[in-house]
Amino acid sequence: MIILGIDPGTAIMGYGLIEQKGNDLRPIDYSCWRTPAHTPLAERLLMLYEQIDPYLRMHTPDHIAVEELFFNSNTTTALSVGHARGVVLLTGAQHSIPIYEYTPLQVKQAVVGYGRAEKAQVQQMVRGLLGLKDIPKPDDTADALALAICHAHSFSLNQKIGEFR
Amino acid sequence: MIILGIDPGTAIMGYGLIEQKGNDLRPIDYSCWRTPAHTPLAERLLMLYEQIDPYLRMHTPDHIAVEELFFNSNTTTALSVGHARGVVLLTGAQHSIPIYEYTPLQVKQAVVGYGRAEKAQVQQMVRGLLGLKDIPKPDDTADALALAICHAHSFSLNQKIGEFR
Repeated sequence: MIILGIDPGTAIMGYGLIEQKGNDLRPIDYSCWRTPAHTPLAERLLMLYEQIDPYLRMHTPDHIAVEELFFNSNTTTALSVGHARGVVLLTGAQHSIPIYEYTPLQVKQAVVGYGRAEKAQVQQMVRGLLGLKDIPKPDDTADALALAICHAHSFSLNQKIGEFR
Repeated sequence: MIILGIDPGTAIMGYGLIEQKGNDLRPIDYSCWRTPAHTPLAERLLMLYEQIDPYLRMHTPDHIAVEELFFNSNTTTALSVGHARGVVLLTGAQHSIPIYEYTPLQVKQAVVGYGRAEKAQVQQMVRGLLGLKDIPKPDDTADALALAICHAHSFSLNQKIGEFR
């Protein structure tokens, strides 16, 4: 199974594509999509769309994993992430790719085995589990790979994103 | 000038299309796009996209007006509106239609002349200014028309949506 983890943002959107075969995880591609500073939001969303859409067409992931919404962050952040997330969900739906979401707690539990793990521990486990020489940079990319690993480890337990009004 | 006002939401998205000629405002079309309850968010966004995209292609509005973000509402609402708004902004950008945003205060001032106007006053003014027999329903549609009127009345003062991280 090919899994694409995405950490949505309007300025920088991390992604990590991995292949799962049984218990084996293999990194295929990971990096981030960026948009230039001082760009109007609508143009940023279009720029992101124009990177995500061909990426999905080329790599045809079986599933997409995204971070679940932070309900305790501030509304400005929530709205900004919401815009970027909306584009990810739309593009995934256009390609008929099921999308799954995980909380930061679930990611830490799945990747490190401990829900209160530090970010550095998660990143070290991402590096180790995927057999990478270095920790992927920026953090958004490491977070996206952690999401993909979390999905690989917990697929049977999770649910498709439900109604969200 | 043809102006499309949109009141974004994932369950119901109001829209109102008007034509401005000098001081004259004429309604062209107004209603709302809906998505069925209990539909996964990604599918809802796709359903909305598939309604907005051909609508923009058919009616080719010169400008789109949307409501500015509510910073004081809760994060759940903010995220939900953010998803729907992301799809609107993306689709507008794909059609190269400039998008403008107005706060509820600006809408009330532009439509009623009084920033603390009640919703019913705004709706009565929308009806009167557009020469409609009845107040448009649902509220989302009336709100979308109010946004379009606000843009028609205050275009010279406003700004394109700026950076929003």
